[in-house]
Amino acid sequence: MNTPSHQAYVPFVSVDNMLKLVLHLGVERVLADLAAEIEADFKRWPLFDKTPRVASHSDVGVIELMPTSDGETYGFKYVNGHPSNMKQGLQTVTAFGLLAEVATGYPVLLSEMTILTALRTAATSAMAAKWLAPAGSTTMALIGNGAQSEFQALGFKAICGISEVRLYDIDPAATAKCAANLAGRGLKVVSCATPEDAILGAQIITTVTADKQYATILTDNMVGAGVHINAVGGDCPGKTELHKDILLRSSIFVEYPEQTRIEGEIQQLAPDHPVIELWQVINGQATGRSDAREITLFDSVGFAVEDFSALRYVRSKLDETGLFTQLDMIADPDDPRDLFGMILRAS
Amino acid sequence: MNTPSHQAYVPFVSVDNMLKLVLHLGVERVLADLAAEIEADFKRWPLFDKTPRVASHSDVGVIELMPTSDGETYGFKYVNGHPSNMKQGLQTVTAFGLLAEVATGYPVLLSEMTILTALRTAATSAMAAKWLAPAGSTTMALIGNGAQSEFQALGFKAICGISEVRLYDIDPAATAKCAANLAGRGLKVVSCATPEDAILGAQIITTVTADKQYATILTDNMVGAGVHINAVGGDCPGKTELHKDILLRSSIFVEYPEQTRIEGEIQQLAPDHPVIELWQVINGQATGRSDAREITLFDSVGFAVEDFSALRYVRSKLDETGLFTQLDMIADPDDPRDLFGMILRAS
Repeated sequence: MNTPSHQAYVPFVSVDNMLKLVLHLGVERVLADLAAEIEADFKRWPLFDKTPRVASHSDVGVIELMPTSDGETYGFKYVNGHPSNMKQGLQTVTAFGLLAEVATGYPVLLSEMTILTALRTAATSAMAAKWLAPAGSTTMALIGNGAQSEFQALGFKAICGISEVRLYDIDPAATAKCAANLAGRGLKVVSCATPEDAILGAQIITTVTADKQYATILTDNMVGAGVHINAVGGDCPGKTELHKDILLRSSIFVEYPEQTRIEGEIQQLAPDHPVIELWQVINGQATGRSDAREITLFDSVGFAVEDFSALRYVRSKLDETGLFTQLDMIADPDDPRDLFGMILRAS
Repeated sequence: MNTPSHQAYVPFVSVDNMLKLVLHLGVERVLADLAAEIEADFKRWPLFDKTPRVASHSDVGVIELMPTSDGETYGFKYVNGHPSNMKQGLQTVTAFGLLAEVATGYPVLLSEMTILTALRTAATSAMAAKWLAPAGSTTMALIGNGAQSEFQALGFKAICGISEVRLYDIDPAATAKCAANLAGRGLKVVSCATPEDAILGAQIITTVTADKQYATILTDNMVGAGVHINAVGGDCPGKTELHKDILLRSSIFVEYPEQTRIEGEIQQLAPDHPVIELWQVINGQATGRSDAREITLFDSVGFAVEDFSALRYVRSKLDETGLFTQLDMIADPDDPRDLFGMILRAS
């Protein structure tokens, strides 16, 4: 057998090792670290090679590839979205990702990203709210209490200092699950019977529901002045959560307009409706919230740069934690022109 | 710790297991099997979800994602092309690939594809030549004796009945390596000092060189009537192998015109220069070689469907050979809405 060279091995972070990594560092620390990494990459946004995700749609869902590069490192995420999976006991969203060296094209990290995506999504939401939500926000309504909900709650606690979350889901069992998972973590958790109850006194409203359809989780009269809306669940064509009239009253902030106009809440608006790119706020090129009565809306769909930041973060923790294995994934013969000889010598 | 469900594991074929698989089945059998799989998928070509590859270019190379789907199974390949890698002792091309179930988005195979790409490229070339080369071809010139050369030689032996290969490379060491690797495999192998010598008496001319530049491996006066040219090395913008005048005298067959016009030899021609899609020849919708004096040219750049066929073939051999391991890659909590609880229960 050939002994592969160092570069033939790709560090692999399994689900088990990702769970261990999060437990080792602590969920809130990981969320805060990820928010800082994502913010740093948003600051250098123009550097990134950006393209809308490459989607393969079917009747029941979508499979997507989300590539990007900062010129030194290339990354992509594989992610699916299958709302009907839940009925079969499967995850709606599963994902994995890869980093590679631009100079050689050799992969340098393969990682599970189902858990990591949940973390980076919450970190991105909270990081955006840090720039957009009213100063001194303490209370968040959390509408949709599924797989993403606890990550959102803890992200807003760790990054924005939220102390109370008000939960609502059409399925009370989901709310009970979310409340149980959040118990004892330093948040006041209030389970609500209606969305109207959930938004009572909330400065921040997070919507994170999963139906693949035009839904109206929030109607116009539910949203008062001065709130920040973190709209997470509308993330593909045909899937929205907010009534159009709310959008028309809001200052809308997005990740990457080319993608958000297809996938986000703003697919309900004219293609030239003004939006503000979040990176420009972070960079000082645009204004975030400019007045206490303004409704700010982060129309989040998830962008490749956030996954890139998250993968780089995981990579940075490998040596320190040892929470990875080596995958024999790259054929690397002694003489690069002698790939066939590698087969011969393996016999 | 959670015990992941069956679907949380993804079968992984490492480089070591791919080498073992090829040795277990035999290189020529694998090449012939792959050619049959690829031909079968070309026959049902209109079924596939096709898109040009998604490329991230840098000064030194390219990293590409090549997705496709037949509606039941989704597949993609990650592949790089870095001509300068060879100087550092690295592979010019490395690759891995994945299959997933369209119905759920869950991955069902992760495989090394550096070796598999070399095999499928040769299988595709030989399968195309079966339809296009002059009847009774016995001799092939093989210009470029690098990593792909032995696979081409054995593919044409197994699939087209070629009995003599005539080798040429600008580096005689490459020719010596190729000749040594092919010794004792039932082919007459002739090492040549010039490309003119290599094409003497050859009914098939295969060019498979690696420089990322406009090169002229074959000039017009080297190519007589009645040959089949298998142009493999020209496979990205700015990289070609044949003098334009040869193209103008040839009937040109391609995989996917949208991609070949960007990456293939025909990037030298007008964007509306007539080409024939290989799948239509196989399907009976177009004519292949129509006359003994015709020059046929397969302007091969490699298309996602070929990788898909190759991955499906590897998947079909897993149970029989056991040559795979299980990767804990998909987070699959008991309750799909309770991803956070999975972290809690791991502690």
